[in-house]
Amino acid sequence: MNFDQLFEPAMACSRRWPRCGPKDRCAAPRDAGEHIVIVGGGFGGLAAAVALRRAPVRVTIIDRRNYHLFQPLLYQVATAGLSPADIASPIRSILRRHRNTTVLLGKVTGIDVAGKAVLTDTGRLAYDQLVVATGARHAYFSHEEWERFAPGLKKIDDAVDIRGRILIAFERAESSSDERERRRLLSFVIVGGGPTGVEMAGAIAELARRALATDFRNIDPGSARIVLVESGPRLLSHFPEPLSAFAERSLARLGVEIRVGTRVSRCDPEGVVLANQRLEAHTIVWAAGVMASPAAKWLDAERDAAGRVLVGPDLTLKGHPEIFVIGDTASVDGADGKPLPGIALVAKQQGAYVARVIAARRRGGPAPAPFRYRHLGTMATIGRKSAVVDFGGVRLTGFAAWLLWGLVHVCFLVGFRNRAAVTMGWLWAYLTFERGARLITGHET
Amino acid sequence: MNFDQLFEPAMACSRRWPRCGPKDRCAAPRDAGEHIVIVGGGFGGLAAAVALRRAPVRVTIIDRRNYHLFQPLLYQVATAGLSPADIASPIRSILRRHRNTTVLLGKVTGIDVAGKAVLTDTGRLAYDQLVVATGARHAYFSHEEWERFAPGLKKIDDAVDIRGRILIAFERAESSSDERERRRLLSFVIVGGGPTGVEMAGAIAELARRALATDFRNIDPGSARIVLVESGPRLLSHFPEPLSAFAERSLARLGVEIRVGTRVSRCDPEGVVLANQRLEAHTIVWAAGVMASPAAKWLDAERDAAGRVLVGPDLTLKGHPEIFVIGDTASVDGADGKPLPGIALVAKQQGAYVARVIAARRRGGPAPAPFRYRHLGTMATIGRKSAVVDFGGVRLTGFAAWLLWGLVHVCFLVGFRNRAAVTMGWLWAYLTFERGARLITGHET
Repeated sequence: MNFDQLFEPAMACSRRWPRCGPKDRCAAPRDAGEHIVIVGGGFGGLAAAVALRRAPVRVTIIDRRNYHLFQPLLYQVATAGLSPADIASPIRSILRRHRNTTVLLGKVTGIDVAGKAVLTDTGRLAYDQLVVATGARHAYFSHEEWERFAPGLKKIDDAVDIRGRILIAFERAESSSDERERRRLLSFVIVGGGPTGVEMAGAIAELARRALATDFRNIDPGSARIVLVESGPRLLSHFPEPLSAFAERSLARLGVEIRVGTRVSRCDPEGVVLANQRLEAHTIVWAAGVMASPAAKWLDAERDAAGRVLVGPDLTLKGHPEIFVIGDTASVDGADGKPLPGIALVAKQQGAYVARVIAARRRGGPAPAPFRYRHLGTMATIGRKSAVVDFGGVRLTGFAAWLLWGLVHVCFLVGFRNRAAVTMGWLWAYLTFERGARLITGHET
Repeated sequence: MNFDQLFEPAMACSRRWPRCGPKDRCAAPRDAGEHIVIVGGGFGGLAAAVALRRAPVRVTIIDRRNYHLFQPLLYQVATAGLSPADIASPIRSILRRHRNTTVLLGKVTGIDVAGKAVLTDTGRLAYDQLVVATGARHAYFSHEEWERFAPGLKKIDDAVDIRGRILIAFERAESSSDERERRRLLSFVIVGGGPTGVEMAGAIAELARRALATDFRNIDPGSARIVLVESGPRLLSHFPEPLSAFAERSLARLGVEIRVGTRVSRCDPEGVVLANQRLEAHTIVWAAGVMASPAAKWLDAERDAAGRVLVGPDLTLKGHPEIFVIGDTASVDGADGKPLPGIALVAKQQGAYVARVIAARRRGGPAPAPFRYRHLGTMATIGRKSAVVDFGGVRLTGFAAWLLWGLVHVCFLVGFRNRAAVTMGWLWAYLTFERGARLITGHET
């Protein structure tokens, strides 16, 4: 089908798009304006849609999932602390009151740059201006065959899968009588010492040593071996050195073995090989690298080594001022000349910036100054009650950092219901060391 | 492997089974007593395990899932009101403090009645006495091929699947421009007018008319057609007639079409045929019948038409006093000569009864009187703010019944965390008409 018919003026004037309540004046603009298509409902795409709310344009946001995911807390789903619905909200309900915005569920298969249309599994979607915010997947550095043994953590399905693997490891160990097999089942390897790796290692350590401590009869979950592997010289390489050192000490206190300067040379169903040393492990979690979505291929655009599209200072594609690329899909240099990191804050600021550019063009005003990232800070949590926070000048570690981390994350979560559920889940976990979402679902056992 | 080695006295005395904390006296009994194996961690099996807590026996409970599911609220997961983890708790953590109890995750493949052992996918599990509480699945009356088009609602995976189907139906309707296809997508058929069918119909109606009402641009979710089909002469046939009539009126007010005395003669991907009338529908939910688990086959026992094992007045298998069958797996007649219904209350009372029989045998005391079901009441909810409750003499309808229904269900939910999360979820849904768990996961779109 052709989506364009959904946006024909006739339909807008019949007051079905945007819908008006019985008490409203007709809100359908006479000239509905340009059609802005946003591909992807992550932090970048959503920020662009929200910022375009009052712009005299029609906005369509398309995503292959019906929800916006608060990815920074995904590791808590993977370690049974939160439920998927606690960190995800339907895009449709977030944008419910945006009368100029239509939300579509669909899979984008390509972009017809010359014909100015997005190709989806159900038809063409013509645009006047396009915002590509399709994010990134984890990458295995040309060892894609490792994915089966060492899943990454980007989607809710990934997190539920990893949660099942971790919980099944303890269950199988409980009913195994082979000591070597037990040790293998109770060994967990996390590859990658960035925030996700650090958070996963801390959360698995606490799950084993606390939440599961008294639940088994034949094994001691606290004896689980958790190994965090990082190829670089230190954990959290984007953080100042003292914070990295603090994180290492905190994790070591939780009983996590840290192997910096070590590369994984092999992954298989039985374990990993680290710098020529074999490590038998049932559960391997990949947190080591990302590769941008295939947007660069769709656009036939210049890209960097991680597949990210090279964009100009106004985040548009060279030669195509009508195409913006933002978030993890784009390669943009920061003030220090280094590429900006693939974090939510960058994507959100880029989404808002793009909306300003679009609004300025519509008004015919001068173009905004080139995009400049305002670094507000980075943080990572290390298990319960500890975190590291870097606000440029201000650095915090330990409990105060953890409180701040919790506050910031709860505030950023979209939707009140989620915020309350997450707060309660955390409070409960803090008071009792319990994990509320310890379900093995979708796994044949 | 052979599970028995897990329970050798040597292991018990090494204080790994049952585990003792550093401050405890050794709790491993000198004579660990008979080994009771419970198959199934539903209402019946769990009640038996809980009631055996202080009996001088060793208990092993085995289930193919790691959690106990509060099935009566499963329809709320299927209609995006609650998250799976809200209504499920790990069996392991429920029984954490039961020092005589071991929990195993495993799939039972048969029972060696002569050799007194349960056969599992990982080995034999010898028992002295056995409690079979394996529950039931939905049944299609020799039309098993309908399951693909009309999934039933017994497991969490079922509920997540149905939730995805319902939400995808609205999404596809939003992007469809074919009026007939839209009508089909927005048609929902629920087969079976028992409590599950009534609750599903009410919940889908409220989802469409309230929670989703303002989220779409091209469709009016409130125009969804919801048809509830019952082959008998009235809904809720186990309830007194006035309550059935109330339920019908309430559902009609929510816009549910009720077809009593109507059979489904065909299900296919495009819809159903009801009494020779074709009804195009994208979503069909099966709530029409149950079939007991294959336990009767494992035991080579006499069974009724629904596959339930015929048991004696003490719930044991004829000729095998060491084998108890309870819950949905057993066919037991009530005081009125009619078979007891397959509800949680029956299973729980039977589980507790079996524990009393086992304890009496162990003490060498007289056997308890034959099992007698104490009917405390039945209830069903009809959307928001309305329910029917039948406490024998006392009958309630409407808001008061709904309050009571909510109170009872929250009280029965296992584990405080779940109780708080469910209460909050409901309160939120009540105040805002929102649904907190509107995620489409695991579906390719």
